[in-house]
Amino acid sequence: MHSKDSIKKLVGSLCELPGIGEKTATRLALYIINCPQENARQLAQSIIEAREKVRLCRQCFNYTETDLCVICKDPHRDARILCVVETPADLMSIEKSNSFKGTYHVLHGAIAPLDGIGPDQLRIKELIQRINQGSVKEVILATNPTMNGNATAIYISDQVTSAEIRITRIAQGIPAGGDIGYVDQMTLKNALEGRRTMS
Amino acid sequence: MHSKDSIKKLVGSLCELPGIGEKTATRLALYIINCPQENARQLAQSIIEAREKVRLCRQCFNYTETDLCVICKDPHRDARILCVVETPADLMSIEKSNSFKGTYHVLHGAIAPLDGIGPDQLRIKELIQRINQGSVKEVILATNPTMNGNATAIYISDQVTSAEIRITRIAQGIPAGGDIGYVDQMTLKNALEGRRTMS
Repeated sequence: MHSKDSIKKLVGSLCELPGIGEKTATRLALYIINCPQENARQLAQSIIEAREKVRLCRQCFNYTETDLCVICKDPHRDARILCVVETPADLMSIEKSNSFKGTYHVLHGAIAPLDGIGPDQLRIKELIQRINQGSVKEVILATNPTMNGNATAIYISDQVTSAEIRITRIAQGIPAGGDIGYVDQMTLKNALEGRRTMS
Repeated sequence: MHSKDSIKKLVGSLCELPGIGEKTATRLALYIINCPQENARQLAQSIIEAREKVRLCRQCFNYTETDLCVICKDPHRDARILCVVETPADLMSIEKSNSFKGTYHVLHGAIAPLDGIGPDQLRIKELIQRINQGSVKEVILATNPTMNGNATAIYISDQVTSAEIRITRIAQGIPAGGDIGYVDQMTLKNALEGRRTMS
């Protein structure tokens, strides 16, 4: 590519995105150069807009453009059930599954001693405050079933002192469509331990 | 994601890029929301700049920001050898291989009767004009070894009437690191037909 400056600059900028290598960046850049000018402008515009407008919900720390996010504002969501997730992306996944009608609390990470991330770097203090306000009846710990996610779940459950609040952990087991012959041992162990009576 | 407007809009814009599905678009959007504002601005800026500044070289139809592209302007490139490619991306690949010191001509596509693309939709007329100006000694047809690319190569070679101009076609054969046991029959046939005496 020999209109060096602007194409190379665009490829460089695109390369900084996660999971975008030089080949993909080049493909995208060539597409952008060829697309209608209006589309390129709109893409640039939405990048700036999203980056500028989006902030964190005052209550659950999900992304929002207003003070409270739409889930916290929604009167049809059950504020007595709190689902604790690591990231807004996790929240999005659960929302897409359409299987949860409570509210959320986004930690923005998990406790990771090796990376120097302790409870204070996460929104755990705010979570405990929310729980202590008294209306919460159940806290579902939906951090990832990884070492860090599990540690975070254990840490939070230790912090909740009220015996009236039910603390649960999302189930671990074989994913839908999974193949028992191929599933790893830890998952199998969890799936067996978590077995439920068939009704 | 529940700060509907701007994140959804960004995901939508990113989804229009080639090879970017909703999952990747969401991942990229979440990254953009989290990155330093300066980076987001720069990405948006380079999109607009690239789209606005880049145009086609007057001579070879490669991308450029000036009237002639850097290859056409370069006195060290051999203007007597013309390498004909389908797209600027193909040109980039050849440039990266560092194995060609002549100049290019970008057709911006290949003849594709089924898609209604004939010679007039490509930069073939301009290619023939360049050739007829008299300084070109060899035309390397580096269109893809596909039905359309081959048809385009044959069409162009038919158009060049001067017997003094050498018309060549890039070699077809087993790619470097390829496995003869896995290569398709057409490629093997081409590789055998194109065999060369070992020096």
